[in-house]
Amino acid sequence: MSLTPVLEKIDTDLDAAMERLMTFLRIPSISTDPAYKAEVDSAADWLVADLQSIGIPAEKRPTTGHPMVTGQIGTDLPDGTPHVLFYGHYDVQPVDPLDLWDTPPFEPQIQDTPNGKVIRGRGASDDKGQLMTFVEACRAWAAVHGSLPCRITFFFEGEEESGSPSLVPFLKDHADELKADLALVCDTSMVSRGVPSISSQLRGMLKDEFTITGPTIDLHSGHYGGPGLNPLRELSKIVASFYDEETGKVAVEGFYDGVHEVPESQLRQWENCGFDEAEYLGGVGYTKAHGEKGYSALEQQWARPTLEVNGLWGGYNGAGSKTVIPSKAHCKITCRLVGDMDPATLRSNIRKHVEDRLSVDAKVTWDNDLDGARAFTMNVERPEFEKARSALSDEWEREAVFAGMGGSIPVVGYFKTILDLDSMLVGFANEDDAIHSPNEKYDVKSFHKGIRSWARILDALSSK
Amino acid sequence: MSLTPVLEKIDTDLDAAMERLMTFLRIPSISTDPAYKAEVDSAADWLVADLQSIGIPAEKRPTTGHPMVTGQIGTDLPDGTPHVLFYGHYDVQPVDPLDLWDTPPFEPQIQDTPNGKVIRGRGASDDKGQLMTFVEACRAWAAVHGSLPCRITFFFEGEEESGSPSLVPFLKDHADELKADLALVCDTSMVSRGVPSISSQLRGMLKDEFTITGPTIDLHSGHYGGPGLNPLRELSKIVASFYDEETGKVAVEGFYDGVHEVPESQLRQWENCGFDEAEYLGGVGYTKAHGEKGYSALEQQWARPTLEVNGLWGGYNGAGSKTVIPSKAHCKITCRLVGDMDPATLRSNIRKHVEDRLSVDAKVTWDNDLDGARAFTMNVERPEFEKARSALSDEWEREAVFAGMGGSIPVVGYFKTILDLDSMLVGFANEDDAIHSPNEKYDVKSFHKGIRSWARILDALSSK
Repeated sequence: MSLTPVLEKIDTDLDAAMERLMTFLRIPSISTDPAYKAEVDSAADWLVADLQSIGIPAEKRPTTGHPMVTGQIGTDLPDGTPHVLFYGHYDVQPVDPLDLWDTPPFEPQIQDTPNGKVIRGRGASDDKGQLMTFVEACRAWAAVHGSLPCRITFFFEGEEESGSPSLVPFLKDHADELKADLALVCDTSMVSRGVPSISSQLRGMLKDEFTITGPTIDLHSGHYGGPGLNPLRELSKIVASFYDEETGKVAVEGFYDGVHEVPESQLRQWENCGFDEAEYLGGVGYTKAHGEKGYSALEQQWARPTLEVNGLWGGYNGAGSKTVIPSKAHCKITCRLVGDMDPATLRSNIRKHVEDRLSVDAKVTWDNDLDGARAFTMNVERPEFEKARSALSDEWEREAVFAGMGGSIPVVGYFKTILDLDSMLVGFANEDDAIHSPNEKYDVKSFHKGIRSWARILDALSSK
Repeated sequence: MSLTPVLEKIDTDLDAAMERLMTFLRIPSISTDPAYKAEVDSAADWLVADLQSIGIPAEKRPTTGHPMVTGQIGTDLPDGTPHVLFYGHYDVQPVDPLDLWDTPPFEPQIQDTPNGKVIRGRGASDDKGQLMTFVEACRAWAAVHGSLPCRITFFFEGEEESGSPSLVPFLKDHADELKADLALVCDTSMVSRGVPSISSQLRGMLKDEFTITGPTIDLHSGHYGGPGLNPLRELSKIVASFYDEETGKVAVEGFYDGVHEVPESQLRQWENCGFDEAEYLGGVGYTKAHGEKGYSALEQQWARPTLEVNGLWGGYNGAGSKTVIPSKAHCKITCRLVGDMDPATLRSNIRKHVEDRLSVDAKVTWDNDLDGARAFTMNVERPEFEKARSALSDEWEREAVFAGMGGSIPVVGYFKTILDLDSMLVGFANEDDAIHSPNEKYDVKSFHKGIRSWARILDALSSK
């Protein structure tokens, strides 16, 4: 089957593909907020119908949370045809703070920018736009040739932005159905604008949350200011103690257990991967990298662990002032893990750090419902990786790179441990896509060339 | 005019007085929230009508904010009759967090507690219940004798809980009308349950608020965790740096300029004033005083300055987790001032402390609409103070004390500077009244004996 007419079909069909994506983006499928349960369900229905329109017998599969969408095509292809599983997620992040959006998050728009046209709206990049690059590539193959070059299992979840509570049970219950040769995932970025990238490693994740209680009730700061222990001061002291300001390192004992230095050879490869440090930092207002001293921004992002405060609150936050010593102060943290760091050990080290530093009369309580996942390294020695790298290089007219990644995609670990399935991560997002932020967007170039990239990768994987 | 029948009238009229207070408490006169503007106005109307029912020609006086209530009685009394100005405020604090109230804040109730009956509801203590002790004392005098023993100017404001923006202009515009021999204020606590107290000094107040900005937009902690400066970490570092953990002192340079040590003689007097440190600390869950080392809880509260964080927030505070490095972190602070500390100098010292410690790429902005007031010491050598102390001792059957106070009542400073008027602060609140907090209450004993106390004080002031 020839690739050329498939690429031509993708080019002529681009406007229609954009329209389909815009329709998908109009569904506010915020998975973390129960108020949007029906909309998440609608997004699953839309995806099922769209896959069916290509000739893929897709289904919505119930879970105790939001549904999965699955489908399989190419079961009639000859023995020996490669079998890939494509994973994506159709749910999106919440949109707050809404007042920072320049256009309504669920009324997607095509806009001109200095870097070309973009599709603006929640989910445009993460992950509706990205997952549709693969679906549109399949549509073009099916339209031109009546079939696909590979056997493909589609697997979409609606809980990626809310901790994926149904994922592991579903994988375990349907392991036989989901087995394939290789998983393809489109939920990552390019290392720099225009540099096609295959992610070779992911950081792991640990989430935790704690509350410090000082007095049993909120107090008047006139009556108790001085003698009274203030949990906001206590929390600040503890958060500050997480870090060594001299070295930029995390000061929790045992934090770096299992962290390995990046080999010189890999460092040199990264240095030449096209990462634009000045744009990466300057684009969001930084003049330098603020992490561990002695490591480049790239290493800090891809190969070093973090302890990050994601939320911190207590006391009065309305207009004017309130002379209160609050009873409670709250803190949400996440860590990014690398190498062999163990989430459970890390959690107990962090909790011990906090508990050891509490003043008399301060108490701490922990949220015990938050999960963790180890870091993960891809098996880039598999032949499919070189085939994909070559296909990407052809499409983007520059050498594709194996790059690290700062983010965490726990599903990749579950594919390995539950399905014994390696993953290949190819994504077309840019650092300025503002995912998880107001004014999220996806470059039209990413969308268009992303579709073409997947068409080429499917072709390359099917070749001997 | 005899005091005895006045006290008897107060006793027999107590239930009716409680009913009047409950009606007053049902008006949600939250001054800081514009949504309650009409209710604040209603509270002023209620107060005018109540004063008129005693025969006091009271009026509601417009300002650019909430109205003042004024009235004068006794202008026909002989020359040489003492003339007092009574001050109180009819506005109340907001009620959040509402879910911590056991009963609706504006549906006041009489409840039994281990310390006797209490009136539960927002404003029961601060300041509706306290101001009504004086009004009810006047009602009893007028009912029994047809007149009052002193000439009295009533002066009530409705903006005390929202920074009193109209107070200074009103005092300046009506200085002649408001002149008197001495101001009486009922907005303070007893040093300990059952110990009648005249406040001899007040701490001053400085309010400030700042926002630290890191990245220009909220960032994904996978993409920027490591290299990215997090304003929540920055804020924690700066708040922690406000304090010297070894000494418990505030570590801002120049913070203690103008602070004087309390003379030994006064310390000894305070030690014997009946302050119950164990109840004060233990009642809210503290086992020790957490302020400056080497100072008692009483000194820390009354005679030492503080820098207190009243609110701190940034990032995500909803359910679950959000992997965000927020763009901004916010902090509200207030200081309590003593001695000759100058609010303006202190403000610039604190701002310099913050600005000197900011990391590269972190910016700070300040709220410039927040005020400050110096500490204030009462003129306890005036003969009225001894007369009042004696009257209070008679009523409470134990020696009344001159006590310090941790709170701030800026009006006392304005009375002095604008009207050249000394103030005497007598209040009947208890430390466990939960003012500014959920479940505010006022002891029925405070209300009843408070009314009787004012009846006695008016009698004492009018005697030669």
